[in-house]
Amino acid sequence: MQQKLGWEVGFAKNGNELPTDWHMASVPGAVQEDLLPTLERQDWYFSDHVRQFEWMEDVYWYYRATFRKPQVALDESLYLFIGGIDYSYRIQLNGREVFNHEGMFSRFEIELGDELKETNELLIIIDPVPKSMETPSRDQASKSVKPAVSYGWDWHPRLVSLGIWEDICLKTNKSKGFKPGIHYRYQLEDDPCEADIRIEGSVGIEEGSVVFSISEGGDQVFRETFNVSKDWVIQTKFSPGKLWWPYELGEPFRYDCKLELRGADNAVIDQYEWKWGFRKAKLIMNEGAWDEPSRFPKSRSYPPITLEINGQRLFAKGTNWVNPEIFPGKITDQRYEALLILAKEMHFNILRVWGGGIVNKDYFHEWCDAHGMLTWQEFPLACVNYEDDPGYLKTLEVEATSIIRRLRNYASTVLWCGGNELFNNWSGMTDQSAALRLLNALCLEHDPGVPFIPTSPVAGMGHGHYLFWDSETNEDVFQLMYRSQNTAYTEFGMPSPSSVATLQKIIPAKELKVPVENTASWRAHHAFEAWIGNTWLCEPIIRKFMGDMDTLDALVQKGQELQAIGYRAVYEMARQQWPYCSMALNWCYGEPWPAAANNSIVEYFGFRKPATEAIKMACRPQMVSARFPKYEWNVGELFYFDLFFFNHHTKALTPGDIEAWVNGHHVITWHIAKTEAYQNAVGPQVKYRLKPGDDALKVDLVTADEVWNSTYTLKLKKQEDDQGQVLNM
Amino acid sequence: MQQKLGWEVGFAKNGNELPTDWHMASVPGAVQEDLLPTLERQDWYFSDHVRQFEWMEDVYWYYRATFRKPQVALDESLYLFIGGIDYSYRIQLNGREVFNHEGMFSRFEIELGDELKETNELLIIIDPVPKSMETPSRDQASKSVKPAVSYGWDWHPRLVSLGIWEDICLKTNKSKGFKPGIHYRYQLEDDPCEADIRIEGSVGIEEGSVVFSISEGGDQVFRETFNVSKDWVIQTKFSPGKLWWPYELGEPFRYDCKLELRGADNAVIDQYEWKWGFRKAKLIMNEGAWDEPSRFPKSRSYPPITLEINGQRLFAKGTNWVNPEIFPGKITDQRYEALLILAKEMHFNILRVWGGGIVNKDYFHEWCDAHGMLTWQEFPLACVNYEDDPGYLKTLEVEATSIIRRLRNYASTVLWCGGNELFNNWSGMTDQSAALRLLNALCLEHDPGVPFIPTSPVAGMGHGHYLFWDSETNEDVFQLMYRSQNTAYTEFGMPSPSSVATLQKIIPAKELKVPVENTASWRAHHAFEAWIGNTWLCEPIIRKFMGDMDTLDALVQKGQELQAIGYRAVYEMARQQWPYCSMALNWCYGEPWPAAANNSIVEYFGFRKPATEAIKMACRPQMVSARFPKYEWNVGELFYFDLFFFNHHTKALTPGDIEAWVNGHHVITWHIAKTEAYQNAVGPQVKYRLKPGDDALKVDLVTADEVWNSTYTLKLKKQEDDQGQVLNM
Repeated sequence: MQQKLGWEVGFAKNGNELPTDWHMASVPGAVQEDLLPTLERQDWYFSDHVRQFEWMEDVYWYYRATFRKPQVALDESLYLFIGGIDYSYRIQLNGREVFNHEGMFSRFEIELGDELKETNELLIIIDPVPKSMETPSRDQASKSVKPAVSYGWDWHPRLVSLGIWEDICLKTNKSKGFKPGIHYRYQLEDDPCEADIRIEGSVGIEEGSVVFSISEGGDQVFRETFNVSKDWVIQTKFSPGKLWWPYELGEPFRYDCKLELRGADNAVIDQYEWKWGFRKAKLIMNEGAWDEPSRFPKSRSYPPITLEINGQRLFAKGTNWVNPEIFPGKITDQRYEALLILAKEMHFNILRVWGGGIVNKDYFHEWCDAHGMLTWQEFPLACVNYEDDPGYLKTLEVEATSIIRRLRNYASTVLWCGGNELFNNWSGMTDQSAALRLLNALCLEHDPGVPFIPTSPVAGMGHGHYLFWDSETNEDVFQLMYRSQNTAYTEFGMPSPSSVATLQKIIPAKELKVPVENTASWRAHHAFEAWIGNTWLCEPIIRKFMGDMDTLDALVQKGQELQAIGYRAVYEMARQQWPYCSMALNWCYGEPWPAAANNSIVEYFGFRKPATEAIKMACRPQMVSARFPKYEWNVGELFYFDLFFFNHHTKALTPGDIEAWVNGHHVITWHIAKTEAYQNAVGPQVKYRLKPGDDALKVDLVTADEVWNSTYTLKLKKQEDDQGQVLNM
Repeated sequence: MQQKLGWEVGFAKNGNELPTDWHMASVPGAVQEDLLPTLERQDWYFSDHVRQFEWMEDVYWYYRATFRKPQVALDESLYLFIGGIDYSYRIQLNGREVFNHEGMFSRFEIELGDELKETNELLIIIDPVPKSMETPSRDQASKSVKPAVSYGWDWHPRLVSLGIWEDICLKTNKSKGFKPGIHYRYQLEDDPCEADIRIEGSVGIEEGSVVFSISEGGDQVFRETFNVSKDWVIQTKFSPGKLWWPYELGEPFRYDCKLELRGADNAVIDQYEWKWGFRKAKLIMNEGAWDEPSRFPKSRSYPPITLEINGQRLFAKGTNWVNPEIFPGKITDQRYEALLILAKEMHFNILRVWGGGIVNKDYFHEWCDAHGMLTWQEFPLACVNYEDDPGYLKTLEVEATSIIRRLRNYASTVLWCGGNELFNNWSGMTDQSAALRLLNALCLEHDPGVPFIPTSPVAGMGHGHYLFWDSETNEDVFQLMYRSQNTAYTEFGMPSPSSVATLQKIIPAKELKVPVENTASWRAHHAFEAWIGNTWLCEPIIRKFMGDMDTLDALVQKGQELQAIGYRAVYEMARQQWPYCSMALNWCYGEPWPAAANNSIVEYFGFRKPATEAIKMACRPQMVSARFPKYEWNVGELFYFDLFFFNHHTKALTPGDIEAWVNGHHVITWHIAKTEAYQNAVGPQVKYRLKPGDDALKVDLVTADEVWNSTYTLKLKKQEDDQGQVLNM
């Protein structure tokens, strides 16, 4: 039995007086949204109206629900299930405190039995937003396990959500049955391929037995009975006939697992079921990484970042996943699903769940598990120096343990990471930071079979750049990738304006013109003064590479086209570096509210930027690819590029002849006899002298199978391009 | 009461038959030494006689002791104390197994009470040397917590010791008193400066009280009483008036701590005492390290390696400590003391206890604690890929926990490290290796106040070079250090021949001539074919830089002089890089047996190489220093060098005028108004044109206080030096 409750919400200046007004509460949700009707502007994402919410950070929030005592069967007990409350709270039942907790990611079931009257009132009191210092900045999150992004980021407004953000309900459990909190895990051994399984739990009887069974499509393939007492741990071994594979490499197969609790008379008292995929996840050394360092004094080799699943290494193509809603409580299964389907269509095989945002709801992981999408899971630490503070560390330990125990159950969780950019100067944490040593220890204890990295980037990995063109080095993204030699590109951005449809919803009509003016509305949506230079709109860069334009439509269209060109280049040029390089993740995928300009490739309202199509082309498992040293070329110059064929598939392939055409001229035919499984074939360098007759620069790579073909358009520079431009980035 | 036992030793082909012969055993000691009288050659370190011991690896060893049941007071119980048995063993008392363990570093007290007859026999059965594979190599140690060096190294013969290597005795404990295994630790908080103390133990009574007191020179400064039951944990806070300091920065002050156990009647049942120094040890970022990486794609910054003790950062000057005896059981307090006194005389402030060797006996740490010498403590892992093997990890967990609990009690233990060179290709471990993740977690759990690094080198640090001159790059050590920019030089070697007195003890007389021939005796003592090139004798390099010679005496004298020049250069040039660089440790200090040539600076028989005097000069806390771009110069060349003044002291200093003289000519006077505490003053570049009249190259730096003065002799090359030499390294 599960029963929802009807909630009201209100606020007060302190934590021991009740609100004077109560409002209908949407649960799960956020207090900000519930209070929206009371604010001046309901279109809170328009212009800079988001600032309306600021005062809500510093008051106490109250949720109230009244309910009649439910009918409960004789062999059952009544519990309050808490899926997640954001952030620090206590709960009163009929005026008496029954629970308190700091942290939004732990789930609880609280037995209510003896406390209930005929009519009952639940009161949840939520503390103000945690702040470790006064000055508003993300550093205020330095002692909390709350997603730092909500404190404001270069693409996210300050809007610190609070409230009940996951399910909360009354539910019954069998009194003699399994107590809430069954924890299970396995570690898959190589030889023989056997899962070491450990399951722990508590039951409401003193003595009995637990039958653990595993089935495949209805047929039981494993069954073992364990005598148990109140608190029990069972350990066993299972040799899975089928492994769980990421979708590009095989079937994401999952077994049906079941625990049955039987009493002394062998009658079934309770049961518990889940799906389990079995896989071995490792980080192995990138090919060639052991060869460095080569000279004295010798430092260490770069750490491994090549993912190997069930013995098969792979190139991880993916993206940085950020909250798809600014209010985590508003994220629905449908919203997750739409984004996840697109990610798979784009040939992504991994999602980095970025540490600045939330730990996702079950549906996200359930989908990834069912569809063979890998996840890199970060803890909620990002770009802040989280302190060696005993209180913080205690909260982190509790929250992280909950997170690990929940997400380790998904075969798709193949990498744990402490958080984002923690070992860079803008964060200031180091290998000695207690929080990161603690997370390492917790992951080792609770999920020893899955790798852990303290942060991203670690040595060898690269973050950035986040622009098509760097005014300091005068380098375009092709040039940057041509000289870069990283083991992984775990964040690279490429901004573009949002579609006009989006802009019309967020920017006053009179400001929708070019050149775009740096106004409060555009700034609030991170078009200006977000990061270095005139990010993220970058109108001067768009004009520099795409030519002048005089309408907003043209600016958006050209800006999005430039983003697509840039992103495609990075994905392909990273893949060309395989197997030394083994990962490419763009920054970022979606966005939690409508930005005016952003590195995202899917807009808040669901519009796909053209980059999604370009990246889909760049991430095909089998394809021909060209490596260009730069984007802009001149007439008279010797244009050149290198050819590659990616066979990122588990079988060898004979691609045959590849024809390279430049501006309609056949330049070379490259014959590939055979490419082994999951290898790149490296082809010749193609050279073509650009003539005055060339008025464009188009490359066609034609193969025996058109799904492998690639076409590129680069920029052929005209003389006037260099005249009279003043770039101010 | 403590009572030694008389032991005999023998061996058998398997573990369930007794030896046929028994020999007098020296305890603590090693089976190899006990069996020496039965071998053909007792001068086992002569020539290649060390190979005599090889067969001893693969038999079972038995120790036997017979003793009469001791008289024990009514309120006492009898225990067998085991300080350490090398390596995997079981113990029988009167034919019944009473204990077994794998690992040489854990200590135990086993209650014997009920097992005793009037006459008793203890039998210790030690398994053969653990080997994870057949082919003899250090990789055989990949599943054992045994010092890998004994399996053979480029400066250590294969000689895998076995036997009782620490004290073993009968002893009594109060039956109602403290049970063996009182564990205590503190973590010093910054503000206020307060030690969070945690003590745990067990007692033989059901209820009572523990009085914890701290005294300073007989005066009690802290006293608190805790009610305890059988197993107890007490936690309290103490604000130390005096901190423990490394000797160069202050007094290594230690308090006297005492636990008294009192019964229900408040009578004292038992007591336990120790000395405790209070200090805060941190690794902080090296100055300038946050500025890197500076360009996109951005990787992480180098990890911190600057030691900060009680808020004062320091330049760590020291050495890599290796076993001073090949048989750990033979190391005496006197042997430790002589080496430690010399280390302090040389101005070393840190000893890196290298992971290839043993974890040291108490005396070593007691001395360091009492004298303010810092230690960097490694676990017994080195240059091997220790496997993710459940059995190995279990043994490692037990042994490492023992090691941490013992050594954390010394304030001098300021850095934990997983082991040596594990992240380089010759080892093959990575950040994902379970053993290193486990050690990090154990250190965090048991000694959270002290930093942990997984291995040396980590990124930024350098290991090597180990030669005065590198034939591949044609670089001498001055050139190498001139271009190197490391955060720490944690191993750099400089080989030299051993003294003639040593050579006469280990090499047949007819082979004591120059040029030295590559014979089995010289090879066995690592003069040839030890590492790359003709290491470690390096006669061609000595001749290249020091000229020809025709006697062994001259070769030794010139070789040792070259070592002294090289080592001095590295220490000074590393210190010149302060504060970006914060550590210089030579490879290595002493040696466990007489080498014919080695990077050591103290020979096995105790002879100090001239390098000890040179390093003592290079490590003075306050001194003037010159930075030379290379060692060899030509007539006509512009000779130049940079001046530095090190004030590595806690107070500011006004050095005044520094005069730089070259070959007796006064070139420049550098006036230093003031150098702040623990800073380098960076002086001008001195330039001097080398003239045909110069027939040497000598630099004198003369200051107001002669203890700051420095004098250098470099090589002025003569034309004939370049003729007719064929160097074969």
